[in-house]
Amino acid sequence: MTRAVPEPVTRLIEAFSRLPGIGPKTASRLTYFLLRSPDELALRLSEALRVLKEQTRFCSICGNITVDDPCPVCTDPRRDQSLIAVVEEPLDLLALERTGSYNGLYHVLNGAISPVNGIGPDDLRIKELVQRVGDGKILEVIIATNPGQEGDATAMYIQRELTNKGTKITRLARGLPVGGDLEYVDSVTLMRALQGRGEL
Amino acid sequence: MTRAVPEPVTRLIEAFSRLPGIGPKTASRLTYFLLRSPDELALRLSEALRVLKEQTRFCSICGNITVDDPCPVCTDPRRDQSLIAVVEEPLDLLALERTGSYNGLYHVLNGAISPVNGIGPDDLRIKELVQRVGDGKILEVIIATNPGQEGDATAMYIQRELTNKGTKITRLARGLPVGGDLEYVDSVTLMRALQGRGEL
Repeated sequence: MTRAVPEPVTRLIEAFSRLPGIGPKTASRLTYFLLRSPDELALRLSEALRVLKEQTRFCSICGNITVDDPCPVCTDPRRDQSLIAVVEEPLDLLALERTGSYNGLYHVLNGAISPVNGIGPDDLRIKELVQRVGDGKILEVIIATNPGQEGDATAMYIQRELTNKGTKITRLARGLPVGGDLEYVDSVTLMRALQGRGEL
Repeated sequence: MTRAVPEPVTRLIEAFSRLPGIGPKTASRLTYFLLRSPDELALRLSEALRVLKEQTRFCSICGNITVDDPCPVCTDPRRDQSLIAVVEEPLDLLALERTGSYNGLYHVLNGAISPVNGIGPDDLRIKELVQRVGDGKILEVIIATNPGQEGDATAMYIQRELTNKGTKITRLARGLPVGGDLEYVDSVTLMRALQGRGEL
């Protein structure tokens, strides 16, 4: 059969397919979209990818992605230096930032304890957290791991590691999502909402 | 608020968001995935994007994407030079190639007639098709535009342009998709399948 697809095209399709959630069909669509688009679009993406790894690193204090180390959050004097929110991933940090109602520091774990995926406590930045809290300047640690089995296991592990450090340990509230409909909420969430009900 | 996302990260998120079907959330996920992955993954994608436009062009005969002009399909002596399949996009050409049961030439229109999107016959490679057929060597033109309003309009327009050229004009059959279930097939498809029923 004639080779109807030139090599540069298959190579890009293959590279796109390596990304999560992008199968061969989506990869083809993206590639042919770029072929029809002005050069600038593909080149801008190419450049952004090249620069990404070159200019970013992990903050040596909180573990977030940053250009400067320590990161702007860790060095911002306007932020509450006695409060740490522990998150699994940088994207979770972003979600908290977007609320506009958190003004403390962060600690990115880089995942959650997951025996299925072979991720134990030593694979996460838990030791670094214990060290940060050990300084005695942290008054509260808010565990903001995901609500789910792995996040729960991670939260419990961290809680155990941090007891007797003189720091208050809290966790994000569970309950009904705002705008959700009781009828469609799963029963575990509803059970948690019942258990955590507050007086009006 | 502190700038929690470094500029190289937002720039890549922004570049990904320009791709079709990729919203800001998916773009963030892809970016943070690449941040956690080995450098090689981002660099390979970056390189593939850079090379894509540099090394590819459109075949001056059929309009398919190619490195060499004319493309390997147009210059393949083993292919039937008297048969042209007219498709909207290079991806449609690929779909036909994948069947392994088409051995003629192609003509890529680069779209379909769509008044809503302001695409008229002159925006497509129809003139080039008429010219190719005018040579007298083409015995059959298979119109393989998409089954739908725009593809139908395009097919009708092309058919009109090609009458009296002494070339047979055919169109891909409509009917039930193989493996489909009568119960779930839309009624227009079912109607077409009825109209086009064949004797056993």
